Amino acid sequence: MSDTVYLLEMIGIVAFAISGMIVARSKNMDPVGVFTIGFITALGGGTLRDLIMDNHPVYWIRHEEQPILILAMAIVFSYWNRAGRMRESRIVLPDAIGLGVFSILGAQLALDLGHSWFIASLLGVMTGTFGGALRDTLCNEVPYIFRKDQIYASISFAGCWIYFVCQWYFHNETISLTVGLLFITVVRMLAVRFDIRLQRDSMQP
Amino acid sequence: MSDTVYLLEMIGIVAFAISGMIVARSKNMDPVGVFTIGFITALGGGTLRDLIMDNHPVYWIRHEEQPILILAMAIVFSYWNRAGRMRESRIVLPDAIGLGVFSILGAQLALDLGHSWFIASLLGVMTGTFGGALRDTLCNEVPYIFRKDQIYASISFAGCWIYFVCQWYFHNETISLTVGLLFITVVRMLAVRFDIRLQRDSMQP
Amino acid sequence: MSDTVYLLEMIGIVAFAISGMIVARSKNMDPVGVFTIGFITALGGGTLRDLIMDNHPVYWIRHEEQPILILAMAIVFSYWNRAGRMRESRIVLPDAIGLGVFSILGAQLALDLGHSWFIASLLGVMTGTFGGALRDTLCNEVPYIFRKDQIYASISFAGCWIYFVCQWYFHNETISLTVGLLFITVVRMLAVRFDIRLQRDSMQP
Repeated sequence: MSDTVYLLEMIGIVAFAISGMIVARSKNMDPVGVFTIGFITALGGGTLRDLIMDNHPVYWIRHEEQPILILAMAIVFSYWNRAGRMRESRIVLPDAIGLGVFSILGAQLALDLGHSWFIASLLGVMTGTFGGALRDTLCNEVPYIFRKDQIYASISFAGCWIYFVCQWYFHNETISLTVGLLFITVVRMLAVRFDIRLQRDSMQP
Repeated sequence: MSDTVYLLEMIGIVAFAISGMIVARSKNMDPVGVFTIGFITALGGGTLRDLIMDNHPVYWIRHEEQPILILAMAIVFSYWNRAGRMRESRIVLPDAIGLGVFSILGAQLALDLGHSWFIASLLGVMTGTFGGALRDTLCNEVPYIFRKDQIYASISFAGCWIYFVCQWYFHNETISLTVGLLFITVVRMLAVRFDIRLQRDSMQP
Repeated sequence: MSDTVYLLEMIGIVAFAISGMIVARSKNMDPVGVFTIGFITALGGGTLRDLIMDNHPVYWIRHEEQPILILAMAIVFSYWNRAGRMRESRIVLPDAIGLGVFSILGAQLALDLGHSWFIASLLGVMTGTFGGALRDTLCNEVPYIFRKDQIYASISFAGCWIYFVCQWYFHNETISLTVGLLFITVVRMLAVRFDIRLQRDSMQP
């Protein structure tokens, strides 16, 4: 695993862990709940990726410092955030970063293992969305991927293809990974800001 | 993998994908949601089967045409079904076909890998019911396997044993697979038609 | 696998299966539902453990007598418990035993495979809590691990570390396993009895 991939993985883990801890605190969970949700959000997508692609040992078992970091974050977060609840809308940015990082890393691993672009893009979307979907399900929210809301999974899918094309054109992993993940994170933030949707309901659910 | 198995797998995937897309549309999901639910319903059971039996690569990674087919179906379905919502009761037939196909294919793979009839029947039931259970959970329905409703999982279990006995008696895979899956699909349709249950509640929940 | 580990595994399976069947009956499920919930509760945690640690074949596939035992228990339980519903509070003891056994067995397998104490304790907590979390989710209860309630996952975590220290000090697996699991089961029962919590809400949810 290259240094770039490792660095991105750490960024994605921190971002998704923060998003999970914010939701857990907004539900007034105790420190163990905050750690658990942070852990599952940060590591769920990558674990699914490694299980489906038979890539053992699962990455956080090989990199012990990653769960230790999440544990430290949960302790700090629980005490720092004791007084007030954080508004849940604050999760949009960390969630967009985590979505970008893990979509691209999932797709990159799949390419490395010799899968086709189409299969790699599906595995990218799964890796990027599964942690957040577990977070929302466990906290009794509808996962973003199923909300009739601003586009989410389709950005992850498009970003994977942008990564493939860059990689095929430039043959430079660092550039391609960066372009792909910036695309996902920025477009997701714009989609939330300008309320971009695939479909508008005339009938409200 | 024999041609018969491949053909049946495609039938099961199409049937389960249709059942997932009908439920997703009845919840008014956008095209990405329709694809996601169709994909998870069609491929969830088989993925669980391959993970538990350590049968890598997972089948739809090896057979790229299967997720591509589901994608094409989702696009057609989303636009064709734009105007009206489909009644959810329409899913009974595709769900029964998917249940039959995947139960038998799960049991067949387990036999091939040398497991006993009992273990193979459990793996058959898991493979047959897991995709539909994910579909119903993600769409906020109670999964069939937990409804106090017409028999479901027990038909899948019985069908697996009928398949084993046929296979042991005739030594002809095509015949045995067909008998087993027809049993499950037909009995399930009859159970819904004539309201066959294991237990009737005097006290309504 | 040593005899002690096998014996403990059977105790944990029986305890968790009973806890699952009690909840399933209290929801008035039919015999198939009772078996399914009992099966998932008893074998869910260990299956997750074996998948994440790539420990194949999954244990209940290797030990066919375990699912057969659960099937027999479900048949007996469904008919014996036909008349009255069991109060759900009865699950605290079997759940505490299952939590203790599977936490320690998950941690023990991880140590055996050469993982660090920290990783092994995480895998222990996952193995101990996942079956019960599936049971509660499938039966529409909030899983213990997310309830703002008496301590649960933290006891499992502490018990794993007590097991490591015993094992490192005494080099006697039977003693260490017993001390670790007794700690978890007894402390969990005391926590419920004396209402020990990590955090008290001033604001009720």
